[in-house]
Amino acid sequence: MELYTHEYFMNEALRQAKIAFEEGEIPVGAVIVSKNKIIARAYNQTEKLNDVTAHAEMLAITAAANGLGAKYLIDCRMYVTLEPCPMCAGALFWSQIGEVYFGASDPKRGFRTSNPNMLHPKTKVFSGILAGQAEQLVLDFFKKLRE
Amino acid sequence: MELYTHEYFMNEALRQAKIAFEEGEIPVGAVIVSKNKIIARAYNQTEKLNDVTAHAEMLAITAAANGLGAKYLIDCRMYVTLEPCPMCAGALFWSQIGEVYFGASDPKRGFRTSNPNMLHPKTKVFSGILAGQAEQLVLDFFKKLRE
Repeated sequence: MELYTHEYFMNEALRQAKIAFEEGEIPVGAVIVSKNKIIARAYNQTEKLNDVTAHAEMLAITAAANGLGAKYLIDCRMYVTLEPCPMCAGALFWSQIGEVYFGASDPKRGFRTSNPNMLHPKTKVFSGILAGQAEQLVLDFFKKLRE
Repeated sequence: MELYTHEYFMNEALRQAKIAFEEGEIPVGAVIVSKNKIIARAYNQTEKLNDVTAHAEMLAITAAANGLGAKYLIDCRMYVTLEPCPMCAGALFWSQIGEVYFGASDPKRGFRTSNPNMLHPKTKVFSGILAGQAEQLVLDFFKKLRE
């Protein structure tokens, strides 16, 4: 058997966030896992794609549905480095995703500032995995931006 | 001078919704207008694209930003036949769109059921234009689906 941990998958999401950082994007990354296999990896590309909807979570949801050939992600888990915004939480609602793990909280733009019950009633939500690393990456990004 | 009315643009959104209807999609349509010119037209394509994020509003926002070469839609107006869901309202927030006109209310999945203040504080929101036609189209769709 192979043993997977939530940290393992969140680390993969962090790798995506680091790619965003390198490309001058707000560093948020996400992966979607089905049967302990990563079926989608994405990072924020709002600048590159010139599109406010191109958040890591949105791109990952679209890619996962493509990969599965199914619109709903009921048996999937998302790992995302930062608390999703209301747009992404709304998309996660429609996807009926099984579980969402997010790293750092976003007290300014996270979905909980809008409505803490935005996700689907069947979706389980967990927070805090590798939160320190995810938060530091965002802090470093804005520090660099100001310099 | 040419005289435009909100009904004219909402009628164009309704035409998009009718295309969705013909293609077996939940019939919602949207257009985005800049300087009284339609710069994006879209209809719901969640079935065809196998993607829960492919709502008319999302596709229109992406298309408008592409057309304008600008991520923000500050000087634009969206006309959409149905009250946007929280995902689309979240996207409209990020777009900082100037005005949103929606037709029929959606008491089940409209953004106001989640948080009536989801749009950007600078965005003006108007409702009810050609609402009867937009609502009838949705009712006809679900009636046909049940038959």
